[in-house]
Amino acid sequence: MKIALAQLNYHIGNFEFNTQKIISNIEAAKGKGADLVVFAELAICGYPPRDFLEFDEFISLCENAAREIAKHCTDIACIVGLPVRNDVLQGKDLFNAAYFIEGGKVKAITKKALLPTYDVFDEYRYFEPATRFKCIDFKGKRIALTICEDLWNINDNPLYVSNPMDELIKEQPDVMINIAASPFSYTHDEERIRVLADNAKKYKLPLFYVNQIGAQTEIIFDGGSLVFDAEGEKKAEMKSFEEDLQVFDLEEVESVRNKYPEGPRATDIEQIHDALILGIRDYFKKSGFTKAVLGLSGGIDSAVVCALACRALGAENVMAVLMPSKFSSDHSVQDALGLANNIGCMHEIIPIKEAAEAFDHMLAPAFKGLPFNLTEENIQARIRGTVLMAMSNKFGYILLNTSNKSECAVGYGTLYGDMCGAIGVIGDVYKTQVFELAKYINKEREIIPVNTIVKPPSAELRPDQKDSDSLPDYGILDKILYEHIELKKGSARIVAAGYDEALVTRILKMVNIAEFKRYQTPPILRVSPKAFGMGRRMPIVGKYMI
Amino acid sequence: MKIALAQLNYHIGNFEFNTQKIISNIEAAKGKGADLVVFAELAICGYPPRDFLEFDEFISLCENAAREIAKHCTDIACIVGLPVRNDVLQGKDLFNAAYFIEGGKVKAITKKALLPTYDVFDEYRYFEPATRFKCIDFKGKRIALTICEDLWNINDNPLYVSNPMDELIKEQPDVMINIAASPFSYTHDEERIRVLADNAKKYKLPLFYVNQIGAQTEIIFDGGSLVFDAEGEKKAEMKSFEEDLQVFDLEEVESVRNKYPEGPRATDIEQIHDALILGIRDYFKKSGFTKAVLGLSGGIDSAVVCALACRALGAENVMAVLMPSKFSSDHSVQDALGLANNIGCMHEIIPIKEAAEAFDHMLAPAFKGLPFNLTEENIQARIRGTVLMAMSNKFGYILLNTSNKSECAVGYGTLYGDMCGAIGVIGDVYKTQVFELAKYINKEREIIPVNTIVKPPSAELRPDQKDSDSLPDYGILDKILYEHIELKKGSARIVAAGYDEALVTRILKMVNIAEFKRYQTPPILRVSPKAFGMGRRMPIVGKYMI
Repeated sequence: MKIALAQLNYHIGNFEFNTQKIISNIEAAKGKGADLVVFAELAICGYPPRDFLEFDEFISLCENAAREIAKHCTDIACIVGLPVRNDVLQGKDLFNAAYFIEGGKVKAITKKALLPTYDVFDEYRYFEPATRFKCIDFKGKRIALTICEDLWNINDNPLYVSNPMDELIKEQPDVMINIAASPFSYTHDEERIRVLADNAKKYKLPLFYVNQIGAQTEIIFDGGSLVFDAEGEKKAEMKSFEEDLQVFDLEEVESVRNKYPEGPRATDIEQIHDALILGIRDYFKKSGFTKAVLGLSGGIDSAVVCALACRALGAENVMAVLMPSKFSSDHSVQDALGLANNIGCMHEIIPIKEAAEAFDHMLAPAFKGLPFNLTEENIQARIRGTVLMAMSNKFGYILLNTSNKSECAVGYGTLYGDMCGAIGVIGDVYKTQVFELAKYINKEREIIPVNTIVKPPSAELRPDQKDSDSLPDYGILDKILYEHIELKKGSARIVAAGYDEALVTRILKMVNIAEFKRYQTPPILRVSPKAFGMGRRMPIVGKYMI
Repeated sequence: MKIALAQLNYHIGNFEFNTQKIISNIEAAKGKGADLVVFAELAICGYPPRDFLEFDEFISLCENAAREIAKHCTDIACIVGLPVRNDVLQGKDLFNAAYFIEGGKVKAITKKALLPTYDVFDEYRYFEPATRFKCIDFKGKRIALTICEDLWNINDNPLYVSNPMDELIKEQPDVMINIAASPFSYTHDEERIRVLADNAKKYKLPLFYVNQIGAQTEIIFDGGSLVFDAEGEKKAEMKSFEEDLQVFDLEEVESVRNKYPEGPRATDIEQIHDALILGIRDYFKKSGFTKAVLGLSGGIDSAVVCALACRALGAENVMAVLMPSKFSSDHSVQDALGLANNIGCMHEIIPIKEAAEAFDHMLAPAFKGLPFNLTEENIQARIRGTVLMAMSNKFGYILLNTSNKSECAVGYGTLYGDMCGAIGVIGDVYKTQVFELAKYINKEREIIPVNTIVKPPSAELRPDQKDSDSLPDYGILDKILYEHIELKKGSARIVAAGYDEALVTRILKMVNIAEFKRYQTPPILRVSPKAFGMGRRMPIVGKYMI
């Protein structure tokens, strides 16, 4: 039996687009002689559909699309993910399910049992977990079909009390197929291979796994679909961050040779780089926009975002706006211009002096001579936000946010100022990783001026300001933040890991007091196992660690 | 047996505060001769603790607090809610539980089975559902203790496949106790009474129900704790939006007389009014702030928010900023001043002309003579946002957002402009309800100038602008929005309800295209069954209904 894995980029709720893409891949798989073509979890509507699932009409549109797809499943069978209604009165009204379609008809419906409800996942919000399991017979082979998380309950601290494969194995299947929507993080590709290999070994079955690719606002799917033999040896790995359609012979799975990637695995920074480019590109494509605007300060964050945006959208579609103030150093403008010239994007220089003076004058009666402080620093940042949004409004550019994860974490940014934007490009990338990204971007030639990389980071909102005036060294800061955010440690456990207690307490307080700011920030492209946004839900008026 | 119900206002993660409050109520209940005092769901840490629950140290702090509380449970028993660890390896690491404490020791632990995971609730994100159930024996009575949602599975389309009381009833209990964290919406109080009465009737047992009061950022708990007899007749209802401690005699529950409220039930608008005042007050109190700032335009939205803020915080703590532009009508300033004078709050007049001219001049080279359009309208709104945030930064005032639900819905507002603020006061109140609120606020004397109520709504961002230039009549708009947002209907079903198809399509498109704006708005005080924010999670780059 020949099995095609179709690793595709879906668009949430865009049924016409998804259906046409699925049908054209059914035809392509037929052309390649496949007996069965497998699409990802919730392929028909895209993942995650979130509260669209609560609209009855949305489910009907999924059903209509499936009927259209079924018409093309002659001379080939197909497995495709979609939400289906729960006919039983008790329990949630939907299942996260897959159709097995053969001879133009739905022959079997497989339902997901283990519903991820953590981090960015909310599946139990919508779906009833399956409690009954049955294999699918096709062309003399018995298929144990599961959906994503259903294979993920085999670690040391299992999150669920049941395990669907333990039921399915009783029917003595010949092969496992798993359809997934498994988002990227820089730790995830190797974990995925390990978990799936463990399944193949445990159940002594070959395993075909298909993932999605593409970004859905902040969540990025990286693909990397996989084939394992019954010993758990990885026989094939499909492309990362690209669509891919490959056909494998089940009978010959032992002799399949790894088709992709050749060579060593991509480093974390390479993966993050590729993920961010896909994230930017899909945000624009799926929103129907082509052009981006961003503020270019001469610092490293905006330089890296500018370089990524130019790769994602084409330099001709990126407008960099330089907005010097009286506190901007000469090198800021030089470095920003250097980057714009190296990379060939559009740029404008719009000094903010006039607006700053206007606010000073307008506010003088109310401020009654109080001294310059954070207020005036924030006004500068908000003038820049207003200028960027004006460029966005006037010309239809979409504003990219350039805040990094370290400053998002400690609240070192101005709400409605430098925290503006439609999508946060590097909001899940710590400052120390931003430096690595800059070096990676410069690996072949100097795109980001070296001075941008080597000079001390500064917000330049008051004379001779440096980040280090109010923040610890980023090398230390990022390590403490990682302990707290990714590893979910409170102060006692971080101190026990060898950090200064006063410093840890101060940083954790900064993080938790900034929750009100993060609530209002743009969605952030997720590249780590714990990004700010939907995947991290903290109280705002709580009083813990502050 | 005398049962005290302690209906209290907790603060998430503020263990010292919550513990002291619980202990002082234990002492007060003792003083009133109670045998048992009952506190709410997750009382020890406050509800909802969200991802604080993922910090191991947070759970330890709950345990420490419970030990402290137990010391005071001599001569009285207590039931109190807290998260407890799951000792079984399989499943989530926590239970949503309650301790039964007697003689200074934890005698029983009751775990929640039905975990609300919809709207604002995320309980399955953290908790393993209970599968075993046992009554508590105390002073010759057998108590069937359940936690909130555990009693809510008795409607026509049950959300869960199991029902904890169906198990507990087998042990022949004498009384039901339910501890809750059941948030306010203007429909919820009567639904709550009906569901709990149905339980009392179904199981033929008296029922004691204790809820929380107080606001936790956007979620407002209204209290209204209840006692029913075994026929399901409501025997007592405790205060709304206030702390309350009352003692009831189980043996005499039949003869308990309704203690509160006397008289007819509060109307929806009265309830919304009281909820918003509690929401504002608790946001400030729990954040450690006392003073608020807001922009006062002369329109009805900011007038209502100003009046609510003055009631919540005291007029002396509210700063209203008037920011006229060249498009502001004379009556705007007059009406705004009229309100400030009627109510006695602080005010400043800060015209925005200078900043508007500065931006015009700064942007002229980039804008190359393009005509005045939405860009310049937005610049005015953003100048006002910057002025308000400057007042906030300089003086420590917290900015109140004044957007109403109708404009949040259709995206009729400027991100980083009038959509700024720490908390959205009327973001869950439709424009037509805002008018009702204004009339309610004026019920005894004219606080909000009548002209503010009767004049046509306008953003005053261009000459002679009116909301009706770009939006349908609010009477129609709000009804269509309600069908879509509260009732979750797509266009076909709304049209079937009797609305114009072109209008419905246009409005639904406006709603769904504005998702990117709502993602970045402040938390919104929730008063309806479906508010924007945590309880409504929509894709941003999706393509459905747009």
